[in-house]
Amino acid sequence: MSNDRGSKGALHTLAEATTSRRSFLRTASLTAVGAGALAACGKSAAGKEPAARTAAAVGGTIAPAALSPLAAADAMDAMHERGIKAFPAKTEGKGNQLLPPRMEHGVKIYDLTAKVVQWEVEPGRRVEAWTYNGVVPAPQIRVREGDRVRIVLTNDLPESTAIHFHGLELPNEQDGVPFITQPPVKPGQTHTYEFTVPNAGSHMYHSHHNAAKQVGLGLLGAFIVEPMDASAEPKVDVDVAFILNDGAHGYTFNGKSFPATEPIVAKLGQKVRIRYMNEGMMIHPMHLHGMHQTIIAKDGWPLSNPFRCDTLNIAPGERWDAIVHCTNPGTWAFHCHILPHAESDHGMFGMVTALIVQK
Amino acid sequence: MSNDRGSKGALHTLAEATTSRRSFLRTASLTAVGAGALAACGKSAAGKEPAARTAAAVGGTIAPAALSPLAAADAMDAMHERGIKAFPAKTEGKGNQLLPPRMEHGVKIYDLTAKVVQWEVEPGRRVEAWTYNGVVPAPQIRVREGDRVRIVLTNDLPESTAIHFHGLELPNEQDGVPFITQPPVKPGQTHTYEFTVPNAGSHMYHSHHNAAKQVGLGLLGAFIVEPMDASAEPKVDVDVAFILNDGAHGYTFNGKSFPATEPIVAKLGQKVRIRYMNEGMMIHPMHLHGMHQTIIAKDGWPLSNPFRCDTLNIAPGERWDAIVHCTNPGTWAFHCHILPHAESDHGMFGMVTALIVQK
Amino acid sequence: MSNDRGSKGALHTLAEATTSRRSFLRTASLTAVGAGALAACGKSAAGKEPAARTAAAVGGTIAPAALSPLAAADAMDAMHERGIKAFPAKTEGKGNQLLPPRMEHGVKIYDLTAKVVQWEVEPGRRVEAWTYNGVVPAPQIRVREGDRVRIVLTNDLPESTAIHFHGLELPNEQDGVPFITQPPVKPGQTHTYEFTVPNAGSHMYHSHHNAAKQVGLGLLGAFIVEPMDASAEPKVDVDVAFILNDGAHGYTFNGKSFPATEPIVAKLGQKVRIRYMNEGMMIHPMHLHGMHQTIIAKDGWPLSNPFRCDTLNIAPGERWDAIVHCTNPGTWAFHCHILPHAESDHGMFGMVTALIVQK
Repeated sequence: MSNDRGSKGALHTLAEATTSRRSFLRTASLTAVGAGALAACGKSAAGKEPAARTAAAVGGTIAPAALSPLAAADAMDAMHERGIKAFPAKTEGKGNQLLPPRMEHGVKIYDLTAKVVQWEVEPGRRVEAWTYNGVVPAPQIRVREGDRVRIVLTNDLPESTAIHFHGLELPNEQDGVPFITQPPVKPGQTHTYEFTVPNAGSHMYHSHHNAAKQVGLGLLGAFIVEPMDASAEPKVDVDVAFILNDGAHGYTFNGKSFPATEPIVAKLGQKVRIRYMNEGMMIHPMHLHGMHQTIIAKDGWPLSNPFRCDTLNIAPGERWDAIVHCTNPGTWAFHCHILPHAESDHGMFGMVTALIVQK
Repeated sequence: MSNDRGSKGALHTLAEATTSRRSFLRTASLTAVGAGALAACGKSAAGKEPAARTAAAVGGTIAPAALSPLAAADAMDAMHERGIKAFPAKTEGKGNQLLPPRMEHGVKIYDLTAKVVQWEVEPGRRVEAWTYNGVVPAPQIRVREGDRVRIVLTNDLPESTAIHFHGLELPNEQDGVPFITQPPVKPGQTHTYEFTVPNAGSHMYHSHHNAAKQVGLGLLGAFIVEPMDASAEPKVDVDVAFILNDGAHGYTFNGKSFPATEPIVAKLGQKVRIRYMNEGMMIHPMHLHGMHQTIIAKDGWPLSNPFRCDTLNIAPGERWDAIVHCTNPGTWAFHCHILPHAESDHGMFGMVTALIVQK
Repeated sequence: MSNDRGSKGALHTLAEATTSRRSFLRTASLTAVGAGALAACGKSAAGKEPAARTAAAVGGTIAPAALSPLAAADAMDAMHERGIKAFPAKTEGKGNQLLPPRMEHGVKIYDLTAKVVQWEVEPGRRVEAWTYNGVVPAPQIRVREGDRVRIVLTNDLPESTAIHFHGLELPNEQDGVPFITQPPVKPGQTHTYEFTVPNAGSHMYHSHHNAAKQVGLGLLGAFIVEPMDASAEPKVDVDVAFILNDGAHGYTFNGKSFPATEPIVAKLGQKVRIRYMNEGMMIHPMHLHGMHQTIIAKDGWPLSNPFRCDTLNIAPGERWDAIVHCTNPGTWAFHCHILPHAESDHGMFGMVTALIVQK
């Protein structure tokens, strides 16, 4: 370890060594000087740490070749820490918020405008998003079996589009598949869907036109149907629609990447219902630390035999409802266990959030 | 929108804008002129469509730069429509047809010749296929538990081969794994498998020699075993072996890509049994519109607790049996929900078909 | 068969060609001379073998262009046979061995040193591995619900690290996530985890720091917890922790690639418990020939309704417990059914092993 190591040179080396697809490199240069100043917690014991380390961590200049493993570790750890300490990071825009209907003659009316916006996926990373009402995921629609619902779609996109209500067993002409059940809704046009809500469960709505692109860019949302007879429903304190995506915006939960993902917060002893919905192209096995999940429904249909797990594999188009009984206090990592979807040598990113169980 | 837009220029722009991995571009140039002539259906309401559009859609010439979003949408939609209107498209060759056995002293004899043919996956797209009896999938073998069966394999391929009866619990020497249970069957040789059918269910047969290549090229088929005691079998009106593949031939259902895939057709109130079999290298979550699926068996083994879903994730080597009660009339999209397996900006392709419920 | 064939030259060529398991065509032309030396077995019958084959097989020199399909098949088969006959191949190092604890005041103490070693994945292929105690997978930890356990981790890696006990419902500060539950353990440092073992089942331990890299390189192992009340446990004769990985070392079972994978060996009538654990980035549908698997637990939690299958899809982070009742004697192929993970034109490799049922 060299006395004259400098954070600038050190990180230059690090930057070259890691071909990051993210903007953490900018971060790195800002955090390197503080690499030795990590808030210690737990019971780590200093081992054979060279005395030079402190000096190295506070700056100076060295040749890249002199960067010791420990200094490199410090620099890497500083990047990791920065990401975690930023969580939950503020970003502009929040999707998946409940959309209150307009009522008209007993019909619940939802107005959706498909349009292109800039969407902040994580702090400072803005991407083109194709959205319903300007947010990713789209506003959450939550109705009840038997409700009469009208969806008024205005297309302000540069392409045609259509909405498929994924999981709802609708009359054919309401199914939203261009040239099979309706014509495409052209740019500038408005199209109205109207139906009586048929089957309960955690469903979705999304584009079914040029969908590999349009869904990947954000034309998707939760469509949750509460059962007419709610007596069999589990009693929960927190109810979260949790949408996974892996398209043009990267790896996201509800439209945001770590550290901008939103934690789930509950109090000790409470029950949380997580309605997983995969709108991406890949599986995502969601791993919860500290507690297990009890899986009670598949695609909105209750399982006659719920099962327990800590890692639930969710395939594209699937929905799974999980109950977590929050018996273990603390902040628990909660992430996709395909590790390259969740962590790089620059720290956690993408499909990471936390379940916070407060005492 | 320009008055002097021309379909030729328009599609030149479109062609450049879309980097297709398929040959749809040829299609595009043929259909562009008709882009404004889409048969309208449903209740779309004309929005702020410029009057110029009609003129634009019937031809003329413009510079590519003048292609408006609406004209681009029209051109894209025309391609989409063309694909869907072509469905189900005729192609040469049909696999998965029941193979009647020769009977000899109470033994059901099936003659299979492994050979190379040209196979039309979708209209005009012919590929090299390695087949049993010239078709992809191979002819369907359907027997009953306890039957005595003899499979006579003749190898007319340029490589050695062998047949593994995937899912059947056979005596070891009939298991079809070269150098473990038998020698490879050389080009020009004949090999005979003979056994008493052990366990019921939706099984498969395929090459187990250089199999990543040979199965990918088409050496695969359904091997369905009806139970000796059929009293527990669900009563169904339609029974379909549904083989997914994603190898050298692209994304296919029963050896064909959309629009050449075969729809499943049933009458209102009927029950359909779909025996999913994945012979590919990727998962395929199969999403049915309009109705749910009740999953009754895994790898031929009945589930003690069937479950319902609309999207069933099927991994390579797996078989799942689903029952669909056809309660909802209409033509329903039925596709892999990994959207890039089913749709591009040139329209639906690959793993798309329909369940048609006739009134 | 030729007298003047040179096996040394032929196999030297083969060895060079198979390490790449690519560029087969070059190989074929070179190895064709030895192609006639395969031991024949079973009941294959010579068919319409061209007369030219004998000539080709007896050696001499031919131009590559003259290589007949049969000679090419012989050459390919020879490579396949060589791989299978080498199984189970000896390699240096064996992971997943039970680690006996030190006892101290009733506490089971496990000392783990994270360090870099060279690891022989298959004969002659040595790779850099990041290990606990020098082996991949790490030594197996097997304890009982309610045990007091202390894990003493010494970090001899060039990066920081930490251990997450995947599946164990520990107090938050023992969860092993740097900057969330503890500081990273720096190079040269020691960190101690201590807890009372909470929940039974087939669990894992692995790095949770820069984990996409560190787990991919080998910092992973089985952590099995026997239930306090063992009365509900299935009685088995063989109990195997079976860890799948697909990172920097290629496709491996318990740290080895075929033909260096270890077979599972049982006697006819015995029961085998296979505890699948996926530490990779991809699904792996594990297909057993000859017998089915009864799946009894998910992530350590017993299933109230076990199900049967021959192909079990295992996603990253998941664990599944399977029981195989060994009723069918013989050597049975047992492999991932994503065929490119298991076989190439150079023969079986990667995720292949066997279940050997001895009479």
